[in-house]
Formats: sequence, structure tokens, C-alpha cells
Amino acid sequence: MTTLGELGEFDFIERVSRIFSKSSQSNNVEIVEGIGDDCAVVRIGDSTLLVSCDLSVEGVHFRFGKVGAADIGWKVVAAALSDIAAMGGVPVCALMSLGAPVDTDVDDLEAMAEGMHASAAACGAVIVGGDTTRSDTGLIIDVSVIGTAPDGNYLTRKGARVGDLLVATGAPGRSAAGLIAQERGIDAPELLHAHYHPEPRIAEGQWLCARDGVHAMIDVSDGVVQDAGHLAALADLGIEIDSAKVEPDSELAAFCDAHALSARELMLAGGEAYELLFALDPESGADTVVAFNEAFDVSASELGRFTDAFEGVRVDGEPPASKGFEHFATEDS
Amino acid sequence: MTTLGELGEFDFIERVSRIFSKSSQSNNVEIVEGIGDDCAVVRIGDSTLLVSCDLSVEGVHFRFGKVGAADIGWKVVAAALSDIAAMGGVPVCALMSLGAPVDTDVDDLEAMAEGMHASAAACGAVIVGGDTTRSDTGLIIDVSVIGTAPDGNYLTRKGARVGDLLVATGAPGRSAAGLIAQERGIDAPELLHAHYHPEPRIAEGQWLCARDGVHAMIDVSDGVVQDAGHLAALADLGIEIDSAKVEPDSELAAFCDAHALSARELMLAGGEAYELLFALDPESGADTVVAFNEAFDVSASELGRFTDAFEGVRVDGEPPASKGFEHFATEDS
Repeated sequence: MTTLGELGEFDFIERVSRIFSKSSQSNNVEIVEGIGDDCAVVRIGDSTLLVSCDLSVEGVHFRFGKVGAADIGWKVVAAALSDIAAMGGVPVCALMSLGAPVDTDVDDLEAMAEGMHASAAACGAVIVGGDTTRSDTGLIIDVSVIGTAPDGNYLTRKGARVGDLLVATGAPGRSAAGLIAQERGIDAPELLHAHYHPEPRIAEGQWLCARDGVHAMIDVSDGVVQDAGHLAALADLGIEIDSAKVEPDSELAAFCDAHALSARELMLAGGEAYELLFALDPESGADTVVAFNEAFDVSASELGRFTDAFEGVRVDGEPPASKGFEHFATEDS
Repeated sequence: MTTLGELGEFDFIERVSRIFSKSSQSNNVEIVEGIGDDCAVVRIGDSTLLVSCDLSVEGVHFRFGKVGAADIGWKVVAAALSDIAAMGGVPVCALMSLGAPVDTDVDDLEAMAEGMHASAAACGAVIVGGDTTRSDTGLIIDVSVIGTAPDGNYLTRKGARVGDLLVATGAPGRSAAGLIAQERGIDAPELLHAHYHPEPRIAEGQWLCARDGVHAMIDVSDGVVQDAGHLAALADLGIEIDSAKVEPDSELAAFCDAHALSARELMLAGGEAYELLFALDPESGADTVVAFNEAFDVSASELGRFTDAFEGVRVDGEPPASKGFEHFATEDS
């Protein structure tokens, strides 16, 4: 027998995809993109829908009680909506499935629902339904989201070309730094906020999708190196990250200095950042970055380049030490 | 503090609905029906979408290993698609969120995925995406479904009128009988099949939705009495069930006789039946039942009537002893 831990998340998804894609016949609908991207893409009537879901389990993704219930609610919805941002879509609505022990305090669950509602509303979405059931082993929250692709246009993870720039929004290491601050009891409210109040880059994603020269996009959920690896693999290319270009903001840099952490490591391997990572045509690239930085408060910055000299992701010519978060790894990074 | 168990499932849903419905503003979309029906109804472009989700937790909803993984997969998808049947909709696609321990046998998960795929395909739907993550406490499966309402028409739980007939498809006690057979090790393959291979009444639901005189509909997931109670409550009416009309089929009757079970009790309180339960205009009612029984293999039969003489559901004038399945009850029925 092979266990899920031995096979690993990505090979498992590959196997299940093969089963689910055996027939792509559905009643009066066109499945445009199936499993393997941030969202599946489905055409119904005159609309192109982006659909995705995100499952969070107490003890694996969050610890109830260590942080406020409203923060957990905010985060699980933001994580799901970030998949819509990653394709340049417009969030529409969400469903919430909740499993909870019978002795859960209802006040906590109501606070969590308030956080979920606020998180959805901040992205222009409404939670329209859900399911509740008993769990004997802690909270389970699954958020499913539906968005639309304006004029049927969306970006996928596939399409990076040789020579493209790898560009990220924001500072993807801030969320991981916030988690470390919480675990070590360090007072760093802004970083903690980055971890529990991620803001899906909805407007930024739509802007990038409408711009010429953006060839592929993904959101950073498992860490820049790992998520960049998906862009590389789908293009049969490699990515050379130049660590000199990986610049933490001054707050993150100061936090890392004070606590003997590598800011660069957090920037490259830290998960749950919900920033955007995209492949940008080198011709128009500089202009796009300038225009982006004028249009938004969050900045975009180049981290490296796509190459056909090798496959996978290298940092300064070497395979990186830490790859990011793999869901079935027995030791989580 | 109030616990979830003390508050109960339906009061909890009521509280959360109030939070989620505080704003029904969403980006270019109309929320037609929010929380409280089998599906939420959302208009996007020229389509009316029906969306729903169904969360199943190992140890609460199923026991992995006691039955085949493919059967579990079939059932969780059928349960979710039954919500689309209950509104007369056309299933389109589904998402699957899976939480699984690292030591889970991948062969079992693949068998489960095959069951899910077959179940979706039987209803004309495709599983287009999902999420996988680690769970340290057993399997977690959430299935989200999207369907469409033909020409924008659908049935809700609300709308039953005084004098309407309460009609059910099939024999809702068969699923519960199958579960008992399994637990007691009784050889009853057809009943076990009813429990693990429910067939959502998709075509039947669409037929009923298109027919004049069907005023409200729900699927039987928690038991006839409990689910009929939702139809009654939303109409501010009562329902008088006539136990003489509650007829198990001959196989179910024989099984119950042989094992000292009350077939009527299973028919009225047995959950996970995924039959349809609807309020039917008494004028055209008899004709509709006849036409239904000519059109489908599964039969429809009258169980009782809606009344304004009282609220709630009564059987032969008395409140029923066993109500059905309440998800946060500490003792499950």
C-alpha cells in the first residue's frame, strides 16, 4: 500500500484529476479549465465562472483560542477569494461548510461568522449559503467561492515564456513572520495582521489580467519558491531567482534582524501570503511594474527570470534549501 | 456561555444567516435566495444558479473501512446533488474538498474518487476542482455543487398552502433500514444499496418544478417528519400525516417484520433518504400523482395534508415520538 504521505499532495492531485476528468460531459455547460489551476473555469450561459474551494482544519491550519475567532473567519474566506484574485476574476459569492464540536461556544462561532462576512464584503462577495454539521475533533471550515471572469478573460498558471520576469506583489514574507511572532509571543501587531488579515489582491489581479504582457499568474499560498515552481513546471521552464532582488520591507527586515531570522528565507518560503506572483513579458515589463506601483498601494517587484537552461526553481544558481508548505509532509515547514 | 449543542443546529443557522445577510451587496450579481433553502439562488448574467454544499465527517457521517470507499464517494456527491434536485435544478459541476490523514491508503482514496465521479456523472455533473489538505483526525469530505434553474424557474421550501397534499417519492425508510442492516450484519443488499447508492431525484425534481400545482419542495435528508416540518414552518402551517397512508414497499415491510422494526417509524424518521417531499395543490393533485407514476420508475404517494388548525407535524393527531436527525444532538437518532 502507498500512503498519502508517501505519495505527496501534488502526485495525489494528479491521480484524482485523471479520475475526475474521465468524462468532461456535463449538462449544458462547458468546462474550460479543470483541476490544476487556482480556480476551475466553467462557462454557463453568457458567463465565465471561476470556482474554487479551500478547506481549513483546526490543529493543522489554525488553533482556535490562540487567536480570535473573527481573525480565523477573516482568513479562511480571504484564502479562498485569493484564488479568484490569482486568475484576475471578480468575486461574487461564497458558501461555508462548518463542522464543529457540540461543546463549541456559540459566541465564538458568531464572531467567526462576523469575520467571514467582513472578509467577503471587503472583496465585494456575499456568503449565500452553507452547511453545518457535528465534528468530534475540532473545527472544520470549508469555503467555496464563485467569481466571474470579466468578458471571459482570465489568467492561468500556464503560459510563462523564456525570458519572462518573475514578479511578486507586496512582501510575501510578512505572513510567515506574523506566525512566528505569534508562536514566540513577540509583539508585532502589523505582521500578525498580515498573517490573520490577508487582503486578497482582487483589484490588482483584475488590473494585471487586463494588461498585455502578463503571461501566467498564481497566488502565494505555499511560498514563493513552491508556487513559482508551478508556473515553471507548467511552462516546462526553470526560474532563476536573484536573491539580491528579494527585498523585505523595512519592518520585516527589522523584525528578522531583531529575532535572528532570515528575511530572505521568509520571503521565498513563507506561506499563506496571498500575494500575486506572475510571469511578465520582459519587453513591456518595466513599464508594467511602474504603472502597477502608481496604481496600487502594494508594490510589485521583480524577483527573477524564466529560463530554458534548467527546470525547477533555483536561487542564485542553487536549488533552494526550503521549498515551502506541502500539505501531506509529516514535518511541516 | 451557550454551546452549539445547547443552541441546536437550526437556531444556529438562523443566527449565522442574520450575520451573513447583513449586506446582500455583491459585485454585479443578484442574490435571489440566501441561506435557508436547499440551495442558494444567484443570478449571474443570463443564468440562475443553484449552489449548495454538504460536509461529511468520518465517525459522524460514515465509517471508513466498514463500507467500501467507492460507496462513500458515491454517497457524499449524491447527498449534495440531491439539494439541486429538491429545487428542480439541472446539476452542472461540483468541487470536492478533502481532508485526510497522511497514513491513508491512496488506493482507498482513488476508489472514493471513482465513486464520486460516477455519482456526479449519473446526474450529468462533472467534478471540476477541489482542495486537499491534511487532517489528523479522519477523513473530511465537503462537496459543493452548482446547478442551473431552467428558464430561471425553481421550487423553494416555502409556499405550501392550507389543504395541500404532502407527497413523497419512493420509500424514504429504505436508507435507514440499510444502515441498520449494516450495523447488525444482516444480509440485505438492496437496502444497503439504498443507503450507500442514493439516486438524487434529478429528473423527477425538474418534472415537478415544471408542473402546475407543486407549491413547495425539499429533499428528505433528516427524515420525513423533520423535513416536512421545514415546509410547514415556512408556510406557518401544520401538517397532519395519516399513518395509514405511509406504506413501506414489500421488501422494506418484510425486512422490518423479520427484525422487529417499525417500518412506519423508519419511513417517517429515517434520514439520508434523498427522496423528494412536496406540497401539492389538492385540485390537480391526484392527476399529478398519476402522471408522475406513469413517467417514473419511482412512485409518488400522499402522506398527509397541510392544515391551519395547528403548527408543526402531527402523525394521526399526535406529535411524533421520533423527529429525525439533528446534527448537534448529543444522542443521534
